Amino acid sequence: MFGRGSFNQLGDILEPKRLNTKAPFIFYVDEVFKGNAWLTSRIPLSYNDKVIYVSSDQEPKTSQIDALVEEIILTQKEMPSGIIGIGGGCLLDIAKAVSIMLTNEGKSEDYQGWDLVKKPAIYHLGVPTISGTGAEVSRTTILTGPERKLGINSDYTPFDQVILDPELTANVPKDQWFYTGMDCYVHCIESLNGTYLNAFSKSYGEKAFELCKEIFLSDTLSKEESQDKLMMASWHGGMSIAYSQVGVAHAMSYGLGYLLGTKHGIGNCIVFDHLEEYYPDGVALFKQMKEKHDIQLPQGICANLSDDEFDIMIDVALSLEPLWENAIGKNWKKTITREKLKSLYQKM
Amino acid sequence: MFGRGSFNQLGDILEPKRLNTKAPFIFYVDEVFKGNAWLTSRIPLSYNDKVIYVSSDQEPKTSQIDALVEEIILTQKEMPSGIIGIGGGCLLDIAKAVSIMLTNEGKSEDYQGWDLVKKPAIYHLGVPTISGTGAEVSRTTILTGPERKLGINSDYTPFDQVILDPELTANVPKDQWFYTGMDCYVHCIESLNGTYLNAFSKSYGEKAFELCKEIFLSDTLSKEESQDKLMMASWHGGMSIAYSQVGVAHAMSYGLGYLLGTKHGIGNCIVFDHLEEYYPDGVALFKQMKEKHDIQLPQGICANLSDDEFDIMIDVALSLEPLWENAIGKNWKKTITREKLKSLYQKM
Repeated sequence: MFGRGSFNQLGDILEPKRLNTKAPFIFYVDEVFKGNAWLTSRIPLSYNDKVIYVSSDQEPKTSQIDALVEEIILTQKEMPSGIIGIGGGCLLDIAKAVSIMLTNEGKSEDYQGWDLVKKPAIYHLGVPTISGTGAEVSRTTILTGPERKLGINSDYTPFDQVILDPELTANVPKDQWFYTGMDCYVHCIESLNGTYLNAFSKSYGEKAFELCKEIFLSDTLSKEESQDKLMMASWHGGMSIAYSQVGVAHAMSYGLGYLLGTKHGIGNCIVFDHLEEYYPDGVALFKQMKEKHDIQLPQGICANLSDDEFDIMIDVALSLEPLWENAIGKNWKKTITREKLKSLYQKM
Repeated sequence: MFGRGSFNQLGDILEPKRLNTKAPFIFYVDEVFKGNAWLTSRIPLSYNDKVIYVSSDQEPKTSQIDALVEEIILTQKEMPSGIIGIGGGCLLDIAKAVSIMLTNEGKSEDYQGWDLVKKPAIYHLGVPTISGTGAEVSRTTILTGPERKLGINSDYTPFDQVILDPELTANVPKDQWFYTGMDCYVHCIESLNGTYLNAFSKSYGEKAFELCKEIFLSDTLSKEESQDKLMMASWHGGMSIAYSQVGVAHAMSYGLGYLLGTKHGIGNCIVFDHLEEYYPDGVALFKQMKEKHDIQLPQGICANLSDDEFDIMIDVALSLEPLWENAIGKNWKKTITREKLKSLYQKM
């Protein structure tokens, strides 16, 4: 569902999905909306439905997902009717992961990887309030686990329903708008320059790429048009990688995220800024966008790291084999050495 | 699912969807594939599964759907596990309509319109073997009923799963390739020039439009690239109208289809060729495409019609109010008069 004000239809959408009066809807909402009646008053609550505010200061952890699932099991008499995520990539990923873990045994870390989920998730609905991650459409939910930062990639991960209401993105701070928007831009570059590319991913990636250029480099769009288009760019960018893969920036950004807790959007920007070697045209355009919007990226975040710490980041990055294979090709191990990655991290 | 050879995965996709050994999968397959072992040998049949060949010489009728549903009810002990359509828009629409009518009471003509379907359809999967209609992704199934040609438009109409295997379109005859491809092109023009347009439909419509230009006007694509891209253009064009509407060409083409049985693709072309007044740029490009591929459209198909016959076509066309509102705006009745439509039909 797409459109300004479409969030108002949340109640109508959920009503037929209610299993019974004891089976609640659980709404995970970004803490930044706590006290924001403009948004929260429109969350339709009945019976035992529950709003849980979650901070997105840190990205979702497998332990956090397991705790949220346990809380539901301990406090609710019945399996929820559905899980709703309202927020950015973190909140959307939390909603996806919880909906999976309510029907699949064990810990969420057991499902980090590709196609490990055995049972369908319960009904889950996503409402993005910032655009760029593609989490609203992707078949992954990125979690930081005890051993790695890796998504639960499965056919059961995608939302059953998504509400794309660009109005909800109106109050995103400028830096965050840029970093998250660049997540989409980087998706396009990595997908379009990857070896996994096919006509499906190409058509989506090209459209998202065009929209990003229009949004971040032209001066012709109104605020509303820009919000509308960035929401669609995020969608198309997500669709593009749904059928291909991301690449070098994402692999290395996961390393930063795992070790330093660097958030995904800004982490991608920090990494991508140094990837001229792999994506020359994409990085050149990125630098133009950065300049146009007067974005100052953090410098020297790896300056004081020990060799052990570099090793941890390198291990995380190298473990993401499909990303490297997509970016470089089947023989990626010949050029993507530990030394190479260390020298790149040292620039950041 | 997208990709050359992906049709081979049909069995893997269906297996977990089988309800029990008495609940068959029913495969509706275009009659042109009868005896074509390359395709039919890959249809996975077990237990009571059934292949039913259906001609697409005529577009689907409500009476045909009702008969197909009755046949299933009379011959099967249990509700099918799923309905699979393999073919062009006709076969895909038949699969969608039968899957709806197996769970909804009454006749299919009762559901022609918007959002009249009350109960979810049974599982249905579509495999297009020609590209352009958008039937693989749309929320409608176009049927000719006793009173009108109109779709069953509902949230339950879209397929649960689609297999996009461009290889299956390799043997489409050239004229049919053009007419059906132009269905997609006309979708884009009508969506992008409509008053219902939003950022969702625009982004999809623009991409489909670009792909159509590349496919039908450039000389740079290989046969395979062209097939791949047309399959994606059809998809994006369908997505574009899923959230907007079609316009003048479709409304008038439905009139031709209802009275003369003119098939949808060629009917759109015959109408669109005369719509300079409404879509000047789109029609100019269409004429270029027609010339480049040496397509001779039938002329004078309305030459010998009686006034009563014109009235029938005009009634069908005018009944499609959302199409006119999208094309012309809320005040469309001021300019779209019976005389106007008659003068247009007389040119065809």
